[in-house]
Amino acid sequence: MQPDTTDSMQIDRYIDPMGYLQDGERLDDLQRDGLKLIQNPDWFCFGMDAVLLTAFAEVREGDRCIDLCTGNGVIPILLSGRTTGRHFDGLELMEDVAGMAMRSVRYNDIADRVSIHTGDVKDAASIYGSAVCEVVTCNPPYLEKNGGLLPSDDHKAAARHELYCTLHDVVSSARDLLVPGGRFYMVHRPFRLAGIMHEMVDIGLSPKRLRMVHAHEGEPPNMILIEGVRDGGGGLVCEKPLVIYKNDGEYTEEVKVLYD
Amino acid sequence: MQPDTTDSMQIDRYIDPMGYLQDGERLDDLQRDGLKLIQNPDWFCFGMDAVLLTAFAEVREGDRCIDLCTGNGVIPILLSGRTTGRHFDGLELMEDVAGMAMRSVRYNDIADRVSIHTGDVKDAASIYGSAVCEVVTCNPPYLEKNGGLLPSDDHKAAARHELYCTLHDVVSSARDLLVPGGRFYMVHRPFRLAGIMHEMVDIGLSPKRLRMVHAHEGEPPNMILIEGVRDGGGGLVCEKPLVIYKNDGEYTEEVKVLYD
Repeated sequence: MQPDTTDSMQIDRYIDPMGYLQDGERLDDLQRDGLKLIQNPDWFCFGMDAVLLTAFAEVREGDRCIDLCTGNGVIPILLSGRTTGRHFDGLELMEDVAGMAMRSVRYNDIADRVSIHTGDVKDAASIYGSAVCEVVTCNPPYLEKNGGLLPSDDHKAAARHELYCTLHDVVSSARDLLVPGGRFYMVHRPFRLAGIMHEMVDIGLSPKRLRMVHAHEGEPPNMILIEGVRDGGGGLVCEKPLVIYKNDGEYTEEVKVLYD
Repeated sequence: MQPDTTDSMQIDRYIDPMGYLQDGERLDDLQRDGLKLIQNPDWFCFGMDAVLLTAFAEVREGDRCIDLCTGNGVIPILLSGRTTGRHFDGLELMEDVAGMAMRSVRYNDIADRVSIHTGDVKDAASIYGSAVCEVVTCNPPYLEKNGGLLPSDDHKAAARHELYCTLHDVVSSARDLLVPGGRFYMVHRPFRLAGIMHEMVDIGLSPKRLRMVHAHEGEPPNMILIEGVRDGGGGLVCEKPLVIYKNDGEYTEEVKVLYD
């Protein structure tokens, strides 16, 4: 359950007859509707957190969804296969990373439903407009700027630390992008939960669902999944724990179906 | 795990040679250091939430502890038996309820370590002074003023609904009573968690520990235990779930020792 490995996914390597791949990149099978994803393991590879977030997010038929800090675009690409949403946008600050996500979109031939844009989360509402979508998703960097040793690679550092976008930036932009009643979905780490809830309540994205993710039953959680509703009022539903592994090291049934 | 029953405790009835009991009251065995508690079942009886809170609260040798919304005084009385704290105060708004708690203190002959005062939570810092204690505890009413049907009995209504004291009043007074670095412990319901964290962060009682309480493993939590530290900064530890019942309906080992 590391955020930057794909050990949870079966990785297949494909020949690349059309030249989609650049140096250092690989093509991984998302095991969902035949979708593939271009990744650069030197930068950041998606992990189980992204998969769990797409399962936690409730995307209804015809919804427009915007993913902030989209990275390699795994969330909008997965959601395009998993749901009947109308359109999926992904916003990524780093041009080369956004370019890689765009190539994944073209490779999968889903440009009619998935669009990737280069831009800053703080400018999201001026890029897309205000109150334009029903769903915002985000798998943001988990650590504060000074929250531990920075990786030397800037791509890796930006994926893990709030160098270019803070929790406040994400929550604030999400609120601006959402229509009233629109839903925000984020995966994060438990140690940030109080700050997350404070930010969300302050900004008017009312926390409505919380699910703790535990590697094994009876252990402390190591991830949280949270839903906020724009102007949703009080009343949080804490759901039953989501457990990843059984005692024998196999995935639990609930997780297994996500990789079927 | 109802808050207003003592079905989890073995109730013994005692003869009352000294006339401590008034009409409608009963004397219950706290099963801890021979302590007894006078309760009025028409008003409110303590439940497992109070017991779990006293186990969750970390009271160190010599600490002074103040319990807000103390009701029948179960929390300071239990803590006086369970810990090596120096002194335990309980603040209760209703004079007749506070009087009952005082009679329990006298019955147990622990007036040197436990004091009950009649007063409003909002006035706590003017009653006790500012920055006077290391620990504040509270098992407050769980429901907002308009959060459902009010019981006709005012004692019962006040124990369940925020009629005379809100979450803000509790958190705000707790912060005023605590020395810097002092610890606040509260038991509450999961549906209020976002508001609790927002209030605590706002007021400077940083959430530092959170424990979800589940009636059975794999079910949604139905209680939360939370620790806040005055000016404690960021970083929350979410602990492993506390499970009350095993599949066979018996208490789990962790809960069993609380009633040993």
